[in-house]
Amino acid sequence: MDLNVAVLGATGAVGMELLSLLEGGALPVAGLRCFASERSAGTSVPFRGGTVPVENAERADFAGIDVAFFSAGAERSRRYGPRAAAAGAVVIDNSSAFRMDPDVPLVVPEINAEALAGHRGIVANPNCTTIVALMAVAPLHREAGARSLRVASYQAASGAGARAMAELKEQTSAILAGRPAKAAVFPSPLAFNVIPHIGHFLPDGSTEEERKLRDESRKILSLPGLSVSAICVRVPVLRSHCVACWLGTERPLSAARAREVLAAAEGVKVVDDPGALAYPMPVLATGEGPVIVGRIRVDEADGAGVSFFVAGDQLLKGAALNAVQIAEALLARGLFPRPAGPEHGRGSSGGH
Amino acid sequence: MDLNVAVLGATGAVGMELLSLLEGGALPVAGLRCFASERSAGTSVPFRGGTVPVENAERADFAGIDVAFFSAGAERSRRYGPRAAAAGAVVIDNSSAFRMDPDVPLVVPEINAEALAGHRGIVANPNCTTIVALMAVAPLHREAGARSLRVASYQAASGAGARAMAELKEQTSAILAGRPAKAAVFPSPLAFNVIPHIGHFLPDGSTEEERKLRDESRKILSLPGLSVSAICVRVPVLRSHCVACWLGTERPLSAARAREVLAAAEGVKVVDDPGALAYPMPVLATGEGPVIVGRIRVDEADGAGVSFFVAGDQLLKGAALNAVQIAEALLARGLFPRPAGPEHGRGSSGGH
Repeated sequence: MDLNVAVLGATGAVGMELLSLLEGGALPVAGLRCFASERSAGTSVPFRGGTVPVENAERADFAGIDVAFFSAGAERSRRYGPRAAAAGAVVIDNSSAFRMDPDVPLVVPEINAEALAGHRGIVANPNCTTIVALMAVAPLHREAGARSLRVASYQAASGAGARAMAELKEQTSAILAGRPAKAAVFPSPLAFNVIPHIGHFLPDGSTEEERKLRDESRKILSLPGLSVSAICVRVPVLRSHCVACWLGTERPLSAARAREVLAAAEGVKVVDDPGALAYPMPVLATGEGPVIVGRIRVDEADGAGVSFFVAGDQLLKGAALNAVQIAEALLARGLFPRPAGPEHGRGSSGGH
Repeated sequence: MDLNVAVLGATGAVGMELLSLLEGGALPVAGLRCFASERSAGTSVPFRGGTVPVENAERADFAGIDVAFFSAGAERSRRYGPRAAAAGAVVIDNSSAFRMDPDVPLVVPEINAEALAGHRGIVANPNCTTIVALMAVAPLHREAGARSLRVASYQAASGAGARAMAELKEQTSAILAGRPAKAAVFPSPLAFNVIPHIGHFLPDGSTEEERKLRDESRKILSLPGLSVSAICVRVPVLRSHCVACWLGTERPLSAARAREVLAAAEGVKVVDDPGALAYPMPVLATGEGPVIVGRIRVDEADGAGVSFFVAGDQLLKGAALNAVQIAEALLARGLFPRPAGPEHGRGSSGGH
């Protein structure tokens, strides 16, 4: 079937990647509509040689839309998501609005596509850093059982959107010219600096980003008791996140076996040949679909475990590509339009 | 006593910081001589309004020098260090040449100044990342007993010297202007990138930097069996290293108690007030003597432990300042000139 597709947030960093993937033929697109809040409505975005008008989401009739990609922040997702779903669309939401809702599948297709079966019109796309880390963690978990996960992140400006990427460039130019760097999107200047603060701080001293990494990892891996400790840090990179990971495992895992398991995993590329100076870096991951894993070593400080380094394009696998892959997985499983019937019908409010 | 001081590598990034500290009155300097290999000899460096000629280390007579700061790489330290020590100087060596030599004290004065007592004319200044991490780890170890240490580093260009800092600026300008970035000092372009590769790779898949962090931590803390796992990463920061640390402890340690212990530790500044957006960053650490510690939280995945983030000026506490503090500690302990007598005399070759 060809899909009528909607995009909310088409002019953002993730939205532009989404349109680029759709132009490249990622999904069978019958028609495209773009939505924004009142402020941005009335403009247009280029698509397939023409332009698509940006409609006001507030007054929009979402009827006839099969899949709606939302990437305009949690507040707008909460505002327009349920309405789009009620009109019959499957909303694939890139924000944090619904991720921890037990009725909403939180999906990385290579890891837990089976969770899509229970969807009720909204599917959540996980946090970008979580996706990048779990693409490497999940295959190792299937092999040896995840016991604990420690993550130090190296997150690009793109994770904070297109304005943040522009701000990093402006700050960098200013510093090189001997002028002071101004910060508006970031809490401090990011150019030639690193900032261990992503998202708001929570009462326990963690940031929202660190909490997402913990809670979303547990949900995606179906390991509610997994110990996850994260230190999330913004670095002056424009695009592509990296994570340094220590994964404690239930069963012993050699570096060679971890490498084999990862090499066989879908969506993962092992680049781990120090002799050839081959290891994951943002410049290697940018524009690539698979995440790149390397620096794989055994870490047996507290029982079995491995450490490794992952790089992934935050805008692609960390956001737009994963969202498109969710749509492809729904299509492949016959879950478009969303399942009808007493349990999954549009009017159902029963638990799942 | 006033000291006759020599500097080898005076025009390097660390050498310039050393001269600046000496100009600022860090040590009672009676006289200053500067040395370099034949290629650089004949130039001069500014000092106290005048200039000091750079002498050829190859032909140099080190007689009369009390303390010689070496910061020109391991090869030159191995070449000239024993000669300077034989001439009566105490060599404070910033390279890796002698750090793991059991006859050479490896000293961070706030942590193990007592190791200086056994010196035989050469004292090693530890690796910069190791110093920055251990300044926070050591007080917590004294309080609760270190069991395991995991470190992900965010290392500035300064760690690779003045040429590396210039290269990062050139690469950044090139990328902002749409030109390709060229890498000579770094294995790949560092601008808007991160590189999980510092020092050569070793047969076990670790880098030299990661090995130094393990071996030097064990020696400085006198914990030969300490489990240390490091992932060392270069980031596009000009100066000041950061480390994300997970420290497993023998005894329970609350975040509040860890904060108290660190606040009372010499050379450490606790900046850990998320509500006021206060946490360690390279921009805060640059030019500061103390290392900055924050983001302190409990991590009990594998027993007692804490996680935290540290920023320290790589050129100051990570190198030049620690070297000067070693000289001050030697002076305070009456270990200048180096101890005479059968056990520590110049001609002694006995074990220690």
